[in-house]
Amino acid sequence: MKETSKSLKPVLGITMGDPCGIGPEVTARALARPDITAKCRPLVIGSIKVFEKAIRLVNTGLETHAISDVREAQFRDGVIDVLDQDLVDAETLVPGIVDARAGNAAFQAVRKAIELAMAGEVHATVTGPLNKEALNLAGWHYNGHTEIFAELTGTKNYAMMLADEHLRIVHVSTHVSLLTACARCKKDRILEVIRLARGACVSLGICAPRVAVAGLNPHAGENGLFGREEIEEIAPAVALARAEGIDAQGPFPPDTVFSKAVGGMYDVVVAQYHDQGHIPMKVLGFRLDRKSGKWQSVSGVNITLGLPIIRVSVDHGTAFDQAWKGTASSDSLVNAIEYGARLAAEKFQNN
Amino acid sequence: MKETSKSLKPVLGITMGDPCGIGPEVTARALARPDITAKCRPLVIGSIKVFEKAIRLVNTGLETHAISDVREAQFRDGVIDVLDQDLVDAETLVPGIVDARAGNAAFQAVRKAIELAMAGEVHATVTGPLNKEALNLAGWHYNGHTEIFAELTGTKNYAMMLADEHLRIVHVSTHVSLLTACARCKKDRILEVIRLARGACVSLGICAPRVAVAGLNPHAGENGLFGREEIEEIAPAVALARAEGIDAQGPFPPDTVFSKAVGGMYDVVVAQYHDQGHIPMKVLGFRLDRKSGKWQSVSGVNITLGLPIIRVSVDHGTAFDQAWKGTASSDSLVNAIEYGARLAAEKFQNN
Repeated sequence: MKETSKSLKPVLGITMGDPCGIGPEVTARALARPDITAKCRPLVIGSIKVFEKAIRLVNTGLETHAISDVREAQFRDGVIDVLDQDLVDAETLVPGIVDARAGNAAFQAVRKAIELAMAGEVHATVTGPLNKEALNLAGWHYNGHTEIFAELTGTKNYAMMLADEHLRIVHVSTHVSLLTACARCKKDRILEVIRLARGACVSLGICAPRVAVAGLNPHAGENGLFGREEIEEIAPAVALARAEGIDAQGPFPPDTVFSKAVGGMYDVVVAQYHDQGHIPMKVLGFRLDRKSGKWQSVSGVNITLGLPIIRVSVDHGTAFDQAWKGTASSDSLVNAIEYGARLAAEKFQNN
Repeated sequence: MKETSKSLKPVLGITMGDPCGIGPEVTARALARPDITAKCRPLVIGSIKVFEKAIRLVNTGLETHAISDVREAQFRDGVIDVLDQDLVDAETLVPGIVDARAGNAAFQAVRKAIELAMAGEVHATVTGPLNKEALNLAGWHYNGHTEIFAELTGTKNYAMMLADEHLRIVHVSTHVSLLTACARCKKDRILEVIRLARGACVSLGICAPRVAVAGLNPHAGENGLFGREEIEEIAPAVALARAEGIDAQGPFPPDTVFSKAVGGMYDVVVAQYHDQGHIPMKVLGFRLDRKSGKWQSVSGVNITLGLPIIRVSVDHGTAFDQAWKGTASSDSLVNAIEYGARLAAEKFQNN
């Protein structure tokens, strides 16, 4: 199963994330949608008991099929194959409570998904949200998925992309202080991220991606008046990218470049730090209902660029405060599965 | 005319901004709306010839009435009173070209508006966009309106608020580099801005404002893992504000706090730097049409807090590239006039 074709849908290895969070229920909800199973052959990796409990919670009538090897998967309509890892007791876990057993189960599912993708047994991986504290309590000392994927695949140069229907954003830095982010705004790294951003768009089927590069400072520094990173680091990186034939433009004022990208002027935006990219994506994708005070929509996905395998994730956390109530939105996981299927189709059909 | 009443609409001193930008045409368009003149008595300050040319451009059929003193204003339906400053030749100015004469005319209109507001002859000022380069060429060395208003009213403690229908944001710092913004994230200033944010909400008729304070770092520092400003500066400022009886909360992760405010959980957000506040406001307010590539909507207003007078401004620049084509959106000026009228009504009815 090293390749797919237009007739064969890609196989996605899907992990539910921390069993005490909203991951299992959003998985149960997303995989009950016929429009989703029309785009891929899903394979859930993790505890079948946790998944079945989540199916009962959201009451979608899905059935499951336990397997111990991908070759046993049947991919039948309405029946989800589960590569069962019997690592956790679904009945003794408490929703919303940090638990080392849950952290370990979540980690082992991710590790298995990476192994399968590296071996070519699944075409892409799609991951539910981890709880960093549970992960660390279980003895797995990572900041999150991205670091696990980088280490287990031996990847040094990678970047986080957030993507929604009309907006794609790749970050120069992510989980560091704003002061450190200023220091990481350097020509070589920016050039590398421009290349990754362009490559990701090509992987999504965009032939000649238009890459907008945001400035670091307000008004993109206003000609050096409010900071010189645009002049000394960002503009030179854009010039080098253009010399390589990449259609990179900028640096642009950070407060209007995202509206322009949403409006179709660019295919991807290079953001200089975590919140410069996360704020516009979440302001557009996360909607709270003014009457009920509940999240109506939590869309957007997180894609790790630079890996040898495909990895797409939801764009939200474990949401322990609303876990196992059956009300969590599956929008982001639906988007993640769609992106995973699209990336896999492009990658394996073009080889 | 030191006070207004429910029966008397507030008088707004409106400046058109740089005559070579989009200010005059958006003024001509906004003041032709009966819903706008139903809320205020507008008084345009500047060149009547420039304003009449803009009225012909947008073809709204407005008439004008030249005056040299506010007491001559008649505020008749369909006729806009203009305090004429004959400082510039409307026929020799070139749209979209920086011109010292235009910069001077724009400055003199602002100076007059401030004088009138300080003298109580207008209840609020509403300003169109300036061109900083033209301003400086004319010998007026300011970064923008905010600095002009602060100096001419003798104000030391002020802050910029951006406001839209469902979102209000006040900034700890604005036009400085991101590195400098990190250094300005200090307890005393944050406390001052929390107070200004609360006061602004009260001025808008919100009795018990809920003030959300954003962190500086990603995930609000994740307990000190990505920066310590939240622990050392922001949380102590929030605690001091609460001790004063202000319903301040935070610091919150910057990438989700704005969605929560839009969803009605908070009345105002304190942003730690320019783009942290400007990105969410403009992503929500500025919409580019995907087919035509033109701005469909440019909403949001800029209010200077801490001044002895009311000052509301459009939330966009002079847009020299589309000036005098008659296509610029007046959404932001309409919002600014509405906010100015609302603030004036609250201020003068309560005295």
